Amino acid sequence: MFETAELGRTISKEEYEAARPELRARLLAAQFALRGTRVPVLVIIAGADGAGKGDAVNRLHEWLDPRNLATHVFGPTSDEERERPAGWRFWRTLPARGQIGIFFGSWYTQPIVSRVGGTMKKGRFEIELDRIAFTEEMLVRDGALLLKFWIHLSKSGLKRRFKRLSKSSETRWKVTKLDRERLKTYDDFVAVAERAVQKTDTALAPWIVVEAFDDRWRDLTMGRTLADALERKVKEASAPKPVTSPAVAPLPPLLAEEEARVLDRVDLTSTLSDRAYHRRLARGQERLHQLTWAAAKKRISSVAVFEGWDAAGKGGAIRRMTWAIDARLCRVIPIAAPTDEERAHHYLWRFWRHIPRAGLVTIFDRSWYGRILVERVEGFAREDEWRRAFLEINDFEQQLADAGIVVTKFWLHVSPEEQLRRFEERQHVPHKQHKITEEDWRNRAKWDAYHAAVGEMVARTSTREAPWTLVGANDKNRARIQVIETFCDRLERAL
Amino acid sequence: MFETAELGRTISKEEYEAARPELRARLLAAQFALRGTRVPVLVIIAGADGAGKGDAVNRLHEWLDPRNLATHVFGPTSDEERERPAGWRFWRTLPARGQIGIFFGSWYTQPIVSRVGGTMKKGRFEIELDRIAFTEEMLVRDGALLLKFWIHLSKSGLKRRFKRLSKSSETRWKVTKLDRERLKTYDDFVAVAERAVQKTDTALAPWIVVEAFDDRWRDLTMGRTLADALERKVKEASAPKPVTSPAVAPLPPLLAEEEARVLDRVDLTSTLSDRAYHRRLARGQERLHQLTWAAAKKRISSVAVFEGWDAAGKGGAIRRMTWAIDARLCRVIPIAAPTDEERAHHYLWRFWRHIPRAGLVTIFDRSWYGRILVERVEGFAREDEWRRAFLEINDFEQQLADAGIVVTKFWLHVSPEEQLRRFEERQHVPHKQHKITEEDWRNRAKWDAYHAAVGEMVARTSTREAPWTLVGANDKNRARIQVIETFCDRLERAL
Repeated sequence: MFETAELGRTISKEEYEAARPELRARLLAAQFALRGTRVPVLVIIAGADGAGKGDAVNRLHEWLDPRNLATHVFGPTSDEERERPAGWRFWRTLPARGQIGIFFGSWYTQPIVSRVGGTMKKGRFEIELDRIAFTEEMLVRDGALLLKFWIHLSKSGLKRRFKRLSKSSETRWKVTKLDRERLKTYDDFVAVAERAVQKTDTALAPWIVVEAFDDRWRDLTMGRTLADALERKVKEASAPKPVTSPAVAPLPPLLAEEEARVLDRVDLTSTLSDRAYHRRLARGQERLHQLTWAAAKKRISSVAVFEGWDAAGKGGAIRRMTWAIDARLCRVIPIAAPTDEERAHHYLWRFWRHIPRAGLVTIFDRSWYGRILVERVEGFAREDEWRRAFLEINDFEQQLADAGIVVTKFWLHVSPEEQLRRFEERQHVPHKQHKITEEDWRNRAKWDAYHAAVGEMVARTSTREAPWTLVGANDKNRARIQVIETFCDRLERAL
Repeated sequence: MFETAELGRTISKEEYEAARPELRARLLAAQFALRGTRVPVLVIIAGADGAGKGDAVNRLHEWLDPRNLATHVFGPTSDEERERPAGWRFWRTLPARGQIGIFFGSWYTQPIVSRVGGTMKKGRFEIELDRIAFTEEMLVRDGALLLKFWIHLSKSGLKRRFKRLSKSSETRWKVTKLDRERLKTYDDFVAVAERAVQKTDTALAPWIVVEAFDDRWRDLTMGRTLADALERKVKEASAPKPVTSPAVAPLPPLLAEEEARVLDRVDLTSTLSDRAYHRRLARGQERLHQLTWAAAKKRISSVAVFEGWDAAGKGGAIRRMTWAIDARLCRVIPIAAPTDEERAHHYLWRFWRHIPRAGLVTIFDRSWYGRILVERVEGFAREDEWRRAFLEINDFEQQLADAGIVVTKFWLHVSPEEQLRRFEERQHVPHKQHKITEEDWRNRAKWDAYHAAVGEMVARTSTREAPWTLVGANDKNRARIQVIETFCDRLERAL
């Protein structure tokens, strides 16, 4: 991978000085144009310690306008980061659309360092690389410009650089003890790094290996690559969009009609008497109260997702849960229209930001499944977008599960007849009128389309780690008990 | 203070059950109406440990809708919180407009606990209480509904409660060892608490002392108080606003005309040759580079604020600074139109969120001073609002300084003639055209009003901890050198 970056290329001072003014002007113009677009720019700077990554980042800062630019260093994790999935610290710092974020150190650092140090096994390393490649392509498909620079210096080049820096009292501090130690493991590092680069050198997020033998060559190469990419992306983003989606061969249907009818198998007839309900509710809430305190002590978080037909009783079921959980341990996140800061990021960003610290319960009243339900049916997401979402969502939930978070998902199911009855009741009971809107009626008119979308959602995103529970909710008593007992069962198993 | 809450008042189970449904309906209706308003609701729950604060919060959660409600517990600080001013953890969790935030533990906890424990001196305690009272009134003036409940139980009542809870295995866990220990220091606690309550019992944010002798009395009192306050506030917020400000007696002018002319004393004539500039720039940047690394090692942060006339050269001066500071240590925050999440909070919130972790440099390109510059002159803020801002801003900066952050503020001053020259240049040089807008011309037409506002700003907000540096910027060379050297001097002194 790195041989082509060991050619010893250099640029003379004259050539560099001659090229710099034009390059800077190009970068600034492209950066200015970027602000008006919906493109987030992520620049990852990776490579061996001592190869001059810091200098390269500083050069970019010198050339770019500091105002929509931020560099993030990922040093030791804070306690707030450690208590969440490993991906959280990166999501919280991803640049918004129109912004440039430079990642100095990134999702590559920890896997590579752990693998070189021997604390991460080969299998795990491969899994981590897969996830990185997946995340990167996901961001690019969402419109991001992602540039991954691998700053490479051969072992002899590295030694030469350390020697040069150590000579002057002005630069001696740049060579740390750690750098010298890393030199000893250089060969191991290169072997691991090569695997990482190779495995994540994807079509949408290819690596750019930059030779660091000569600082001027390194900086000019990076600057020109960035300018080219920015200009191309800004032009592409500003081009008038075709009114229709690009012509693609029709995609195969995702599920046989038959399989999408999984909802039809939900039992909507069984009921629970008020007496039995109150008995089981009291028992269930008591259990929930104790389990959530026990989870808090063991620092195990849980995430409960509520989706369902309008008027299926999500709110009531959620309240029966929250009543039993200590207010200090529980947060309900209602998902409505995104804020403009949320719209300026990938659609999963707004959910990542609510992932709690250790030991807490987070309840999502509607969720990331909007992508493959309302956005799909209403056409807010293009077909290629919602089709990708199955994999994206499964990966997201897997990351939560990997971090020890207990994920439970409920679809509250009612028959169309029962929904109609509830809609009408809402219209006639004064204090319920605010609960029914025009939109509810519009959604109802698309029952069949939603029905198919839900079936597919369940089939494709019900996993061992994050299973769907289909709740027959024609009878509210039964639904609430099923929700509480299911949540308790899963939490209990995790404890 | 607390005698009226030691009357032993109770409510019978029958009365409670009879009152509850109506109260809940009132609360839910008011909470629903709240969502459409610009009112943030903050409920502070304070009082002795063991008096039933947790139960009270849980009761509120039972009665309210969980969807625009969040309870925040302020336990031990995280490392991300410890590295910032003490106020940061509260600002980051303040409810947005239309939301209800319950603070379980609050800005009162740490001062009271430290004072009872003897680690906080009396003088410091009084200062902390002053700041709390100030912050609370500030939030209320900004439109917040603030309810402060002090849950009170006498010593004998507390003992009685512990005895009762300990009897049943179901509730025994509620009495912790810490609670029992606190009982020993109860008298000290009450003395300190009384002082805190008394000193922060302000006109806009009065305390509501709730007797906790009987759980039902406590909960019903809190619920009714909250319902009353919510209803009143929602009604007030929904009432049509008078077109003109309420008639108040004309406020005295803040500064004599003479004093407001401080800007006229800025030397705009002296210049610096290019040769001298380059020599001093190189020296200054070298110094800046080393000082910022040294500050990073000592974990001392700094905040630099840039304000000035349009085209005064803020951007150029900032870039000369950022070039010298390692990209990993520095962040530039350009202040333009607020996002909608920012608009949903007090105007200082958007600045608090950018306060950095320890050891970093944050440069604000425009700042909180917009409140008393553009918002004042353009009438975006009412007179009472911008008049209050002097005190609010001084307090904010004092909090930064108290946390060891080095605050430096620059006003870049040019003459109207020089500004005109630069505007015209911008219009004629192709790559500078994007830097000049209609708004710049409009602002220029209001030169005198801005001039007076700046004079007043300097007079009222130049403090020892956060002084203004007025930079004569007709000559860019001179301005840039002054900025860098001033910043370095202040940082050096702090190290």
